[in-house]
Amino acid sequence: MEVFLENNRGILLAYDQGLEHGPTDFNEQNVDPAFIMELAAAGRFKGVVFQKGIAEKYYDGRVPLILKVNGKTTLVKGEPLARQNCSVQRACEIGAKAVGYTIYAGSAHESIMLEEFGRIQEEAHKLEMAAIAWVYPRGEAIKNDTAPEIVAYAARTGLEVGADAVKIKYTGDVQSFKWAVRSAGKTRVFMSGGPKAPTEVDFLGQVRGAMDAGATGLAVGRNVWQSSDPLRMARTLRSLVIEDRSVEETLRT
Amino acid sequence: MEVFLENNRGILLAYDQGLEHGPTDFNEQNVDPAFIMELAAAGRFKGVVFQKGIAEKYYDGRVPLILKVNGKTTLVKGEPLARQNCSVQRACEIGAKAVGYTIYAGSAHESIMLEEFGRIQEEAHKLEMAAIAWVYPRGEAIKNDTAPEIVAYAARTGLEVGADAVKIKYTGDVQSFKWAVRSAGKTRVFMSGGPKAPTEVDFLGQVRGAMDAGATGLAVGRNVWQSSDPLRMARTLRSLVIEDRSVEETLRT
Amino acid sequence: MEVFLENNRGILLAYDQGLEHGPTDFNEQNVDPAFIMELAAAGRFKGVVFQKGIAEKYYDGRVPLILKVNGKTTLVKGEPLARQNCSVQRACEIGAKAVGYTIYAGSAHESIMLEEFGRIQEEAHKLEMAAIAWVYPRGEAIKNDTAPEIVAYAARTGLEVGADAVKIKYTGDVQSFKWAVRSAGKTRVFMSGGPKAPTEVDFLGQVRGAMDAGATGLAVGRNVWQSSDPLRMARTLRSLVIEDRSVEETLRT
Amino acid sequence: MEVFLENNRGILLAYDQGLEHGPTDFNEQNVDPAFIMELAAAGRFKGVVFQKGIAEKYYDGRVPLILKVNGKTTLVKGEPLARQNCSVQRACEIGAKAVGYTIYAGSAHESIMLEEFGRIQEEAHKLEMAAIAWVYPRGEAIKNDTAPEIVAYAARTGLEVGADAVKIKYTGDVQSFKWAVRSAGKTRVFMSGGPKAPTEVDFLGQVRGAMDAGATGLAVGRNVWQSSDPLRMARTLRSLVIEDRSVEETLRT
Amino acid sequence: MEVFLENNRGILLAYDQGLEHGPTDFNEQNVDPAFIMELAAAGRFKGVVFQKGIAEKYYDGRVPLILKVNGKTTLVKGEPLARQNCSVQRACEIGAKAVGYTIYAGSAHESIMLEEFGRIQEEAHKLEMAAIAWVYPRGEAIKNDTAPEIVAYAARTGLEVGADAVKIKYTGDVQSFKWAVRSAGKTRVFMSGGPKAPTEVDFLGQVRGAMDAGATGLAVGRNVWQSSDPLRMARTLRSLVIEDRSVEETLRT
Repeated sequence: MEVFLENNRGILLAYDQGLEHGPTDFNEQNVDPAFIMELAAAGRFKGVVFQKGIAEKYYDGRVPLILKVNGKTTLVKGEPLARQNCSVQRACEIGAKAVGYTIYAGSAHESIMLEEFGRIQEEAHKLEMAAIAWVYPRGEAIKNDTAPEIVAYAARTGLEVGADAVKIKYTGDVQSFKWAVRSAGKTRVFMSGGPKAPTEVDFLGQVRGAMDAGATGLAVGRNVWQSSDPLRMARTLRSLVIEDRSVEETLRT
Repeated sequence: MEVFLENNRGILLAYDQGLEHGPTDFNEQNVDPAFIMELAAAGRFKGVVFQKGIAEKYYDGRVPLILKVNGKTTLVKGEPLARQNCSVQRACEIGAKAVGYTIYAGSAHESIMLEEFGRIQEEAHKLEMAAIAWVYPRGEAIKNDTAPEIVAYAARTGLEVGADAVKIKYTGDVQSFKWAVRSAGKTRVFMSGGPKAPTEVDFLGQVRGAMDAGATGLAVGRNVWQSSDPLRMARTLRSLVIEDRSVEETLRT
Repeated sequence: MEVFLENNRGILLAYDQGLEHGPTDFNEQNVDPAFIMELAAAGRFKGVVFQKGIAEKYYDGRVPLILKVNGKTTLVKGEPLARQNCSVQRACEIGAKAVGYTIYAGSAHESIMLEEFGRIQEEAHKLEMAAIAWVYPRGEAIKNDTAPEIVAYAARTGLEVGADAVKIKYTGDVQSFKWAVRSAGKTRVFMSGGPKAPTEVDFLGQVRGAMDAGATGLAVGRNVWQSSDPLRMARTLRSLVIEDRSVEETLRT
Repeated sequence: MEVFLENNRGILLAYDQGLEHGPTDFNEQNVDPAFIMELAAAGRFKGVVFQKGIAEKYYDGRVPLILKVNGKTTLVKGEPLARQNCSVQRACEIGAKAVGYTIYAGSAHESIMLEEFGRIQEEAHKLEMAAIAWVYPRGEAIKNDTAPEIVAYAARTGLEVGADAVKIKYTGDVQSFKWAVRSAGKTRVFMSGGPKAPTEVDFLGQVRGAMDAGATGLAVGRNVWQSSDPLRMARTLRSLVIEDRSVEETLRT
Repeated sequence: MEVFLENNRGILLAYDQGLEHGPTDFNEQNVDPAFIMELAAAGRFKGVVFQKGIAEKYYDGRVPLILKVNGKTTLVKGEPLARQNCSVQRACEIGAKAVGYTIYAGSAHESIMLEEFGRIQEEAHKLEMAAIAWVYPRGEAIKNDTAPEIVAYAARTGLEVGADAVKIKYTGDVQSFKWAVRSAGKTRVFMSGGPKAPTEVDFLGQVRGAMDAGATGLAVGRNVWQSSDPLRMARTLRSLVIEDRSVEETLRT
């Protein structure tokens, strides 16, 4: 995981929404993966998250790559299931330093994803790549996927199954997120940026909260590339996360 | 993909309807694959799309081959699923320059097809063949599969999963199809010919619209081989697509 | 397929009913596979169809063997599915010149059978064996499996998936069966004998009709070995199919 | 199969009830597999049927071993399915001369078991082991699993899929069981002991009936080891089956 | 199994609850796997049970390791299924002396777990590791999973499928648990600690009962690490289990 860190902290630019949500998330500019690749480099992100197709056609090596090796469209209903769509070997050839995999904990198909992640993690480690789990509790049985005990369970699942890092949602307050981070043990916690926050200050407060709770960093997408000034947002997040400044200090700069 | 292009544009002659729709699509002439093979050559198509059985018995190498490696009959109901029925290795031996694979995005079985396409794409690239995705949003969750946001999602799915080209339906107007093309990024877009259009001029207008929106070309079947003069239609489409003429100019010739 | 033909025509003796229907199809004599093996040789059939178990214990090489490599009992209800129960390699060792496989087109499990047939066909061809598809449209979605458009679809499916020959039901008249034969292209068509016909003349009329429509031949079981004089019936069918006589001529002899 | 026969007849001691029914079938004595191993040897049984775990810990080679390579508990409801739980290779290492496998004909999962048995049979024969099918028609579609036509179908299924021997239930009378035996052809028929019969004489009558119908022998469990004097019962069965005596003669001895 | 025993008895410290129940089972101290690793060593446990992720990051070799190679979250509803999430090879590399696997007997997915355990057991034995089955009767069909006949069935299932040891729940009294132990034969029985008992004396009585019934030992988690003085509890359990003292003697010390 070291390659994704600076001062032991990291910010990852997530851009797998094209598959997960469809292009309704995009505007004329950020629909273009080349724009995102530029932004990742210019914004000094510590990692960039692509699906195989984007990586093969746009990735240029300037920022460490996390190749997301499963995914699903939002068109399909019912209990969520995303199967592996890129081999670990291929991820390595493309130049990825880590593979990413979503586990829908609580889905009726959970066992398939736990099994696949187990195999993928072992293959990745043999090739000296990290294995990062997106653990998203979802399915009919999950009422509130940001409830503190649910988020902590997601974090712990990442640790138990051998993820080097786990991407989870923010619980809403520092205290409960601290419990999630503690539950993850030596597995690094990245807060999921999630949907664009109502105001920028709200979002920055969440990020600061996650960092204060002990998170390693942040995986962020829409809150950056849907922003009116993505590079400024990138600098703001660096200030908060990598340079460990408060929201006030950061906004003053 | 270069082998399928001329002036960076391409027209593919699709002929997998025998499996997908059954022979009700055919008349005495076009039921015969030999007729289609002749038409593909005489009509100067840039590619021809066959299932394995047709290719093994009728393909003669005069036009580059796209071997469709999955398919289903229209007899089966419920959430659509088409699994691989031809190995990539076999497609290569038959002389295919690309494999084609249908992904029913939104189907309850979507994850199986995303996984299979992922594997097939990697195998095809190792054998120096292109991988073309037919992305058709379908299943109970899809109300309108030519809605602009659905078509754009299909296009993007092709890019995300690593397709060299994606075959999608036309949205109905240039503006919205432009968005689909833009969503596909460096993945080339082929407009799907779809069911025979009410009038030829309607159809040509759609093709012109797709090209104006930035499509690479067209995959067309019934609108050619159900036409009263398939060769004339082939020339007409060449004029529009490869030679980039307007509908008016084309009809004047 | 040449090994199964004489004057480019063939009659196959089918005897997989023990698994497909159970021994209620049999009497004291024809329940014995040794009787069938004798009949196949004495009746000068061009092929005999056995499941693995029958072939291993009774096949003696006097008539070319088609090994049926999938099957199901009639006890099981719901959407039909028959998976591979004999490896192609094993079929070859037993001495088979072709493998047979049933595809229940229209079944909810169709995709499994299309996938298996695809793999089996490739393995068979590598071992220089033919691949024959029994294409039976069945399942909740199929109302009438001898409707002309359904039978033609079955025939075409055989061609599309790469079968060397396809076994289909008779439609009831020459004209519509001609369309099925035409839909099958270079894939040879064998009419399925089906349940014992009400009268022998009815049955012979169907066979004559299929041959006049362009079929290569007939796969017949119960109409021969449930007949009061199986050898006479075998001669009668030879006269119709291989020697291409009319029903009248045949009955006169 | 020769190793399991004496005078071309065989009696197999079945002891897989621990998995199939649970220990409610056992008493303090017969719950101990060592007791059964002794009984098999002392009772001069021609074969003993164990699951892998019993065989690994208790089998001592004095009686030929049939390793049962699938099984299920009686706790699970719904359409029956038992998958392979011991490799054929492992069965061979343990010293088995045959593998046993249950096919629930008529179950919604029938196709999985027919496929598995097909593969297992081929592997077993390569290692020079016999393959014995327990064919039990079961599932929602089966009303009466000792109806003559159902038992005959089970027997025939064993032959068709390539079993060296088939274990089936008794139909209740000689005449109808004769039909089952005839349906099995060269596949040897072992009558299933089934639940403990109301009286010993009833049971012996059934066994005699099966032998008179042409069965090769008997696979018996509870009727022996739940008996008050298992060794006496073993001798009685030898007299009936191997020495071919009548019930009266046998009881007189 | 010898490595896990002292005086032929063993106490295993179970710590897979992070995946099975989530961190709600933990407090600030025992949420930390390093605390558990220390406790395992200081408390002189004979084995420690971890999932792969915990083992890779915290296991230090001081206590023999049982790597649990399947697991599920408690978030998922419906018939229970836990698939393999760690290869046996990887478990061996991490230094495990045994693999653990949960079989939900009675679940609609039972057959998948029986099949996986069968394969895992064979792989483990080849690598000279033990295979321990957690047999938990569960699913819609199971009303009371501590009923004597259900627990005995679980124990027997462990023996039949080839487990070196089986972890089962306590039935509540010595007599009925004796039957379970007897049903397990040469497969060693470990009583499952289960949820924290109402009082410590209750719990110790259960443990004593299991040992008196012939169990090899105890797999315990929450009753130790949720205790106010885990090390004292560890000593108490050693006294009961390894040193075979009565509850009274033990409490007097």
